[in-house]
Amino acid sequence: MFVKETTKGMRDILPREAEIREYLLTKMKKTYSAFGFSQIETPCVEHIENLTSKQGGDNEKLIFKILKRGEKLNLEGENVNIDDLVDSGLRYDLTVPLSRYYSNNAASLSLPFKAMQIGPVWRADRPQKGRFRQFVQCDIDIFGDATNSAEIELITATSTYLESVGIGGVTIMINDRRILSGMARASGFAEADFSQVFITLDKYDKIGESGIEKELLELGYDSACVAKYMEIFRGTMAAEDRFTYLEGALGDAIEEGVIANVKTICDAVAVISDRRFNLDFDVTLVRGMGYYTGTIFEIKSEDFKGSSIGGGGRYDKMIGNFTGQNTPACGFSIGFERIVAALVEKDFKPEGAAEKTAILYDKRMSASDFALMQKAAMAARAEGKIVLVQKMNKNVGFQKQKLEADGYSKFIDIRYPDEMVKLEEI
Amino acid sequence: MFVKETTKGMRDILPREAEIREYLLTKMKKTYSAFGFSQIETPCVEHIENLTSKQGGDNEKLIFKILKRGEKLNLEGENVNIDDLVDSGLRYDLTVPLSRYYSNNAASLSLPFKAMQIGPVWRADRPQKGRFRQFVQCDIDIFGDATNSAEIELITATSTYLESVGIGGVTIMINDRRILSGMARASGFAEADFSQVFITLDKYDKIGESGIEKELLELGYDSACVAKYMEIFRGTMAAEDRFTYLEGALGDAIEEGVIANVKTICDAVAVISDRRFNLDFDVTLVRGMGYYTGTIFEIKSEDFKGSSIGGGGRYDKMIGNFTGQNTPACGFSIGFERIVAALVEKDFKPEGAAEKTAILYDKRMSASDFALMQKAAMAARAEGKIVLVQKMNKNVGFQKQKLEADGYSKFIDIRYPDEMVKLEEI
Repeated sequence: MFVKETTKGMRDILPREAEIREYLLTKMKKTYSAFGFSQIETPCVEHIENLTSKQGGDNEKLIFKILKRGEKLNLEGENVNIDDLVDSGLRYDLTVPLSRYYSNNAASLSLPFKAMQIGPVWRADRPQKGRFRQFVQCDIDIFGDATNSAEIELITATSTYLESVGIGGVTIMINDRRILSGMARASGFAEADFSQVFITLDKYDKIGESGIEKELLELGYDSACVAKYMEIFRGTMAAEDRFTYLEGALGDAIEEGVIANVKTICDAVAVISDRRFNLDFDVTLVRGMGYYTGTIFEIKSEDFKGSSIGGGGRYDKMIGNFTGQNTPACGFSIGFERIVAALVEKDFKPEGAAEKTAILYDKRMSASDFALMQKAAMAARAEGKIVLVQKMNKNVGFQKQKLEADGYSKFIDIRYPDEMVKLEEI
Repeated sequence: MFVKETTKGMRDILPREAEIREYLLTKMKKTYSAFGFSQIETPCVEHIENLTSKQGGDNEKLIFKILKRGEKLNLEGENVNIDDLVDSGLRYDLTVPLSRYYSNNAASLSLPFKAMQIGPVWRADRPQKGRFRQFVQCDIDIFGDATNSAEIELITATSTYLESVGIGGVTIMINDRRILSGMARASGFAEADFSQVFITLDKYDKIGESGIEKELLELGYDSACVAKYMEIFRGTMAAEDRFTYLEGALGDAIEEGVIANVKTICDAVAVISDRRFNLDFDVTLVRGMGYYTGTIFEIKSEDFKGSSIGGGGRYDKMIGNFTGQNTPACGFSIGFERIVAALVEKDFKPEGAAEKTAILYDKRMSASDFALMQKAAMAARAEGKIVLVQKMNKNVGFQKQKLEADGYSKFIDIRYPDEMVKLEEI
């Protein structure tokens, strides 16, 4: 029985949205290429071992698993084990495949390797408004550069892209996982409790300063630790120069240079971008993924009610976890589907699109004149115009209305044989 | 255990090939858009029912099947049935999803609907040289146009595209499944035997005229039928005007207008294209897929040793099979991966690519001068240049060699602090 709907949680993309997507991706490839990022591709199907290597957090629970094929698939016997049935799955992000790609092709790649990867990923999430089970991710990553020039380039490239497609009111927040740790360490929390402290801190936007204090106490942490933590937190938020304040407050609880590194990134980006967007040091920024080892960043935009439209950070240990050989790595990912959805909603028209002309021809036209008309259309297309040739319907008004909705703005009606001369107008 | 290779039969795409792919696809989207084709997208995951609906021939044996998830997956009991385990699979072509798309979205689409669909498909084929289990298909299709203007546009658009990317010596062969049937019918074969006769005829390139005659006799067909069939076949091949000859030879064995229709298409395309490529009526063209109902076409190119780099045809009954409501449909598909492989092999350089400049900077550069350098690079990028900023290695000669292999042709070395002035050269 044929099913005309898409599979659950997935969707068909109609021409109008496809045009916006294409516009956004073309601009993206152009911008990132200009920074020297090279486009690469990995297969959508990944080894099940790589997808379940504990790098992906909760995403590993959402894998679309692919059945073994042929003789390898053994369904006999009782209570078959799921692990025996599958050998691969659809990738749930682009970072795991990129790490595999890098280890597989390191000999052919120059270092630092600046990769741009754009492609679909799949997560069997519970379907909900605006979230789909297949969606496009757009990542840039720099491998083999341990210095902050990686961060500076990633932030500059990403903000240049957002600006190029007209996304305004952009703020990029930056923090460092080691600053988060330093604050917890300086307050006397045990290393084992750091992740829980970060999880609480991550709720700052929702529960505020007093909410954090309350939750930490409720979790049963020592009240002296909590008090010290809140003192550093309040001190940082109130400080005129957060960097200097934190250097003093954290002292030996943080590796030397970590705070200065964030400051250097902020200063450099301000100069490079001529301050066309804000880069804010934000000690409440946590980022969920456990694999980050250093700087972390996130983008907000006024056009998106201040919520996140991208993020990234440094993950110097992931390649090592996979391959046994550490390689510095830093990446930035754009929330492509969120941007598309917002532009579709406000009926965005891609700028610089070619004029769209529709030739509506009389069905009585002879075959040889039809060929001449198509030839004239070809000549206009060669000049970069979009020319649709369509038989004129009885209700030509309605036909044009439909075409206008598809973006056609110029119409040439050719009633036969008198109006063949109009072909010169194309 | 982490696996660094791709899954079997799939592959990673390195930057150099990715650049060629991007070039070919950008040109394709531009060309097909100019003809009024609208880009669309369907999910890669399709209902298993739709993938096993007998439209896909042998491809249905090569499906990557996806395991059900959560409670729906029941592995208990003895001898579990594979059909109970899967609910979906990866699409093996773009035609089945397009047909589903059309039935799902007909209300939002204007007719005729001209669709362009570019995307990966998967087939669990035995891996062999140049054939991969994930590959990109590029299809254009016109739904809702029963006239030959659909064929004319598909052929014109496809050949315009091939020309735009410099593929030379193109010949498009055209035939009609009804002409194949007419020849068999006029020779006295039973309808039930037609497909076998076509399978034999399809071997013409390999076994020649005498091989066809021999095989048909060996298959046990009536010698009078075979003799008549060979007479029509030889007559057509020898005729100065194949159309006129076949009209006479087939008489009532073929619907009126079918042969004239092919002739009209050939004549129109010759005018429209200014005969920049050959469109040949070829009675030996069969095309394997059983779903074709009328015209069929295939592309050969001297650049590809005369073998096929694309094909298509009319399949007026497929939508009806799926939805119960017939809709005329005609499509043309380009053998994208073959073209990519050939261009990679001959070390093709995309034309019109931006100049690539690499700035190699001294590691002693101060943070503030680094920012100024990046700012100068930004200005050049805004003008459309590709500018990579990289730390200078000790062995700068080797570094440049690597970068040259990546397409960088202009180098600016900045030894610090004396050479900052060189930034003006970007």
